[in-house]
Amino acid sequence: MPSKHTSKHSYTESEKKSIYKVMSERRDVRHFNQKPIDYETFMTILSSAHLAPSVGLMQPWRFIHITSRSLRENIHDIVDKERLLTAQALGEKKEEFLRLKVEGILQCAEVIVAALPDKRDEHIFGRRTLPEMDLASLSCAIQNMWLAARAEGIGMGWVSLFEPDALKKLLNMPADSHPIAILCLGQVDEFYKKPMLVEEEWTKERPLEEMCFTNGWNKP
Amino acid sequence: MPSKHTSKHSYTESEKKSIYKVMSERRDVRHFNQKPIDYETFMTILSSAHLAPSVGLMQPWRFIHITSRSLRENIHDIVDKERLLTAQALGEKKEEFLRLKVEGILQCAEVIVAALPDKRDEHIFGRRTLPEMDLASLSCAIQNMWLAARAEGIGMGWVSLFEPDALKKLLNMPADSHPIAILCLGQVDEFYKKPMLVEEEWTKERPLEEMCFTNGWNKP
Repeated sequence: MPSKHTSKHSYTESEKKSIYKVMSERRDVRHFNQKPIDYETFMTILSSAHLAPSVGLMQPWRFIHITSRSLRENIHDIVDKERLLTAQALGEKKEEFLRLKVEGILQCAEVIVAALPDKRDEHIFGRRTLPEMDLASLSCAIQNMWLAARAEGIGMGWVSLFEPDALKKLLNMPADSHPIAILCLGQVDEFYKKPMLVEEEWTKERPLEEMCFTNGWNKP
Repeated sequence: MPSKHTSKHSYTESEKKSIYKVMSERRDVRHFNQKPIDYETFMTILSSAHLAPSVGLMQPWRFIHITSRSLRENIHDIVDKERLLTAQALGEKKEEFLRLKVEGILQCAEVIVAALPDKRDEHIFGRRTLPEMDLASLSCAIQNMWLAARAEGIGMGWVSLFEPDALKKLLNMPADSHPIAILCLGQVDEFYKKPMLVEEEWTKERPLEEMCFTNGWNKP
């Protein structure tokens, strides 16, 4: 719901509406049909990452496009191994978890591994006490991609079920780099109306009010 | 530049244009004029955070709205202390860093501290091997706020120059919570045409091509 505020810098009502619409309709997608994505659309989505903010302008994003089918299958194996280990760790929710579709690596059109670069210790600005700000910047970049993909009618899923060391080894990544996402992009028959984990009744969303405090950590 | 791809799920050219425009024009803002933000606009921006994706739908975002002037001044003190320590750590770039405006905490209309919640260890889905995925989710939420703020004509800055333990103590935060951002929101005379660190010649942006690899970590 766009606010009615206007200053000389504010966007038109119609522009704002598009922006809130894409935020509302963006979904973490695991169900892809097998149709391809054209190269121009793929590059438009990837380029949106590069518009993201970054701490000290370090641009800590690296994207490994997986075009080899056998590598994609190896990545799927790494994820499936972690899926089973996660299921074990979930205890009584194990069976329910195993029924969920948690990734679409073999069905999506394109796979990108997103990673933090090597030599990050050279960057001190904004990271001396909070070194994890590089991950924050890369995550902002991925959120841009998610929104761009939705606008282009493309589904995107962020898979974080993997052992990072296994993925690093598979992709010859430097010891001080760090993969944080296997991004699956592809066409979909339908976008989920609600987050898939809500549709599947895995969990419920809680209201924003429960997450807002004033002047200190207190009861909402 | 919106792609020409169309499927039944893709947005109109005009909608896409608005979305890429806001990604391009969003800036990390430190220069605010002292005009207020109306409550509706403030809540619209904050609500956009709650539209973000989150790992296992854990919604790991907590927002502490700082309405007390003295608390805001205490927060500024914590940031200024870290600003000086960062300057020391930067060695030969010390003087250049000290000339930069790195935050607008005392001039902006509203301050929000964004934090990861306590009891995060209960959440295993997508975090068994990558526990930092909660930070990734909160960062996606903050990117939504940044885009929403820009669309509303409001500047936002993410300050990460602080000692997290000092901020936790000041705001009575639980030991296992973790503050990651001091967000400054306010009206601005002008948005920077380029990232402020580029305008100030602190650093240069590098092209996306340098950050993209194929099938492994290799030369761009």
